[in-house]
Amino acid sequence: MSDRPRAAILLTGSELARGAIRDANGPFLARELTGLGLEPARWTLVGDAPEELEAALREGLAAHLCVVSGGLGPTHDDRTVELLARATGRALHVDAELERDIDGVARAVAERLGRPYAELAVGVRKQASLPEGAVSLGLAGTAPALLLEHEDGRVAVTLPGPPGELRRLWPRVVESAPVQALASRARPREQRVLRFFAVPEAAVALAVEHAGGEGDGVELTICARNFELEVDLLVSPGGEERAAALEDELVAGFGDALFARDERPVAALVLDRCRELGLTLATAESCTGGLVGARLTDVAGASDVYLGGVVAYANEVKAARLGVGEDVLARHGAVSEETARAMAAGARAALGADVGIAVTGVAGPRGGTAEKPVGLVHVAAEGPGGATAREFRFPGDREEIRERAAVMALHEARTLLARL
Amino acid sequence: MSDRPRAAILLTGSELARGAIRDANGPFLARELTGLGLEPARWTLVGDAPEELEAALREGLAAHLCVVSGGLGPTHDDRTVELLARATGRALHVDAELERDIDGVARAVAERLGRPYAELAVGVRKQASLPEGAVSLGLAGTAPALLLEHEDGRVAVTLPGPPGELRRLWPRVVESAPVQALASRARPREQRVLRFFAVPEAAVALAVEHAGGEGDGVELTICARNFELEVDLLVSPGGEERAAALEDELVAGFGDALFARDERPVAALVLDRCRELGLTLATAESCTGGLVGARLTDVAGASDVYLGGVVAYANEVKAARLGVGEDVLARHGAVSEETARAMAAGARAALGADVGIAVTGVAGPRGGTAEKPVGLVHVAAEGPGGATAREFRFPGDREEIRERAAVMALHEARTLLARL
Repeated sequence: MSDRPRAAILLTGSELARGAIRDANGPFLARELTGLGLEPARWTLVGDAPEELEAALREGLAAHLCVVSGGLGPTHDDRTVELLARATGRALHVDAELERDIDGVARAVAERLGRPYAELAVGVRKQASLPEGAVSLGLAGTAPALLLEHEDGRVAVTLPGPPGELRRLWPRVVESAPVQALASRARPREQRVLRFFAVPEAAVALAVEHAGGEGDGVELTICARNFELEVDLLVSPGGEERAAALEDELVAGFGDALFARDERPVAALVLDRCRELGLTLATAESCTGGLVGARLTDVAGASDVYLGGVVAYANEVKAARLGVGEDVLARHGAVSEETARAMAAGARAALGADVGIAVTGVAGPRGGTAEKPVGLVHVAAEGPGGATAREFRFPGDREEIRERAAVMALHEARTLLARL
Repeated sequence: MSDRPRAAILLTGSELARGAIRDANGPFLARELTGLGLEPARWTLVGDAPEELEAALREGLAAHLCVVSGGLGPTHDDRTVELLARATGRALHVDAELERDIDGVARAVAERLGRPYAELAVGVRKQASLPEGAVSLGLAGTAPALLLEHEDGRVAVTLPGPPGELRRLWPRVVESAPVQALASRARPREQRVLRFFAVPEAAVALAVEHAGGEGDGVELTICARNFELEVDLLVSPGGEERAAALEDELVAGFGDALFARDERPVAALVLDRCRELGLTLATAESCTGGLVGARLTDVAGASDVYLGGVVAYANEVKAARLGVGEDVLARHGAVSEETARAMAAGARAALGADVGIAVTGVAGPRGGTAEKPVGLVHVAAEGPGGATAREFRFPGDREEIRERAAVMALHEARTLLARL
């Protein structure tokens, strides 16, 4: 068991529990808690059923810090505050000052949406109710974030479910005295990251065993996804020697495949390398439909390198906008190495960029043939020093194939740029 | 408490618990379980710490069906099977047939990656070990999916963590006799969906109360995100009357804003409407960098409507590839209604499409000014019947602003197409 303060994350909402929408708060909170030196030991996600939420709250409240997201709204199925009061054995009361604040926000909302205020009034009193001892950390819309110190200095925090609101209020949680007190008990650990390209997980596990495995102040995790294998070493004070032995073993065994020592996504690695070399970048995408561009522009500051791209979903667009020869399309087909290479060249020419990245493939579920099955993807990259291309046959569904195709197109550019 | 069989989802992995990567299995499993008529009552996510995983397993095993993802790999930190054996009080044994199957796969993997087989052999015996009474449902790579009937006909299933592998093996779970037996006990519920655009949640909640609220065989959830408000009615046999009353009240109050009665994403609504009208579609994106195209091409079969687009991140690309006038850019700036309109027109012209969708904005965190702050976004759509544009000032971080900008660009096109 970790000697760091234990944190529990509790996510609520029927639409989350049914899988109708995807939670974004868990990953954010987990990273933040890890950054504070706490151990995000468990996450629980439950719907609106009060008995499930109450059970999950009672489990979560056993942690040093329990962070709850969602269930703070004005509607009947928002029960987080009421059940927090019950689980901690505290009465609910309406906070007059909070009620005034929420009322002001509700009036502005009604006006902006051109709806009668009466529609919103009913929720104000509900949202201004809090358990004895709880304090408001601020509002997001009409929903207050609450902090409650309960038994033995343990802390519960409730935050609104919409991710933007939760993130906006999170700094208030971090700055609060009870959370600062918990964080001060955490011994910071150094995280060392090694990311390898196309190496089997079991081989890395064996190398780890050879070097003595974890222990002596080092915790190690291995995570494989989309042909990337990430090894994380969490090093407590005193664990430096073991960590160095593990790193040496891994670099000795797989150094050629080591492509990063930090968690920058491959899009950021590509952008940073272009910046270093003073090169601009353009994309040409077929089956990914804009995903590669979206990944690149996810990275803040992409605009000094990335000029833009062409989404050439139809063959006519590949020909007219990227200059892919009609003969290339006719002879080799839209999903071919030749077309991928021509698209990369076309992206450079059409956008006046130094480096072009291209991807074309069969994402499915329809459109596959015996010769060109669903999952067949060609990626290419072209730069001032030459060009490179690669073929993949990905398993998986449409979403996975597109995701992998986008990542591999970026890796192809990374490989090309590494040689310059 | 629901009268349907209760299901628990247990997700494992330190990299998930720390928030380093985002889980995709929970949403998939939740939707599948809901589809089978089971209630996905709780999800739990834990890291590799054995005591956390064992506690979560014991909680999960109380459900009629407990589905575990992850922790089946060959490495030391994959402990799901061992702890499942402990939590159900069963011994582990090596299954000889399974061992032969896994060995065959491991040899093929070693060959493909050009690594010595010895690196993989160590994991084979571990992965062929299962609790007494468990059966293998098939392999994904070297990892077997297992099914174990334990006390009182309750069922536990372990599946590999990589999403593609989990999805590939999931049909074997559904087809298994114990899971079929559970599903046959579920009374199917009808789901009715009403989706409104730009209506406040509290107003809808009030209308629901006016119509008598939930109960009498109707469960209702309200979920707001990105200016969409979704109302789900889960109707048990006998609940039809109450459901109709609720629907009538909502349609009477907010009918103008009702835009869908199913869960198709807005991209699918736009594509379907274009298909209905025989129109083709193109995109022009600045701040979203390809997200709108990616959303459209997420939808299988998009290619008969969507031709492609231009990601015009740099101003030179807006001018050269989309024909946005230098004077428009100089006078109004890249983030303006005029530029958005010119981009939509340019997308139509450049790609020979009937309908153009455009978006330009300041996604931040840098690049904002007093006049054009971070979060300012202009969307536009142009079709055979005319054009439309809209300005937004979104709160949130770069990711949220881009996400909202992409959704709103699609809604702008939806609105335009609704008039045709």
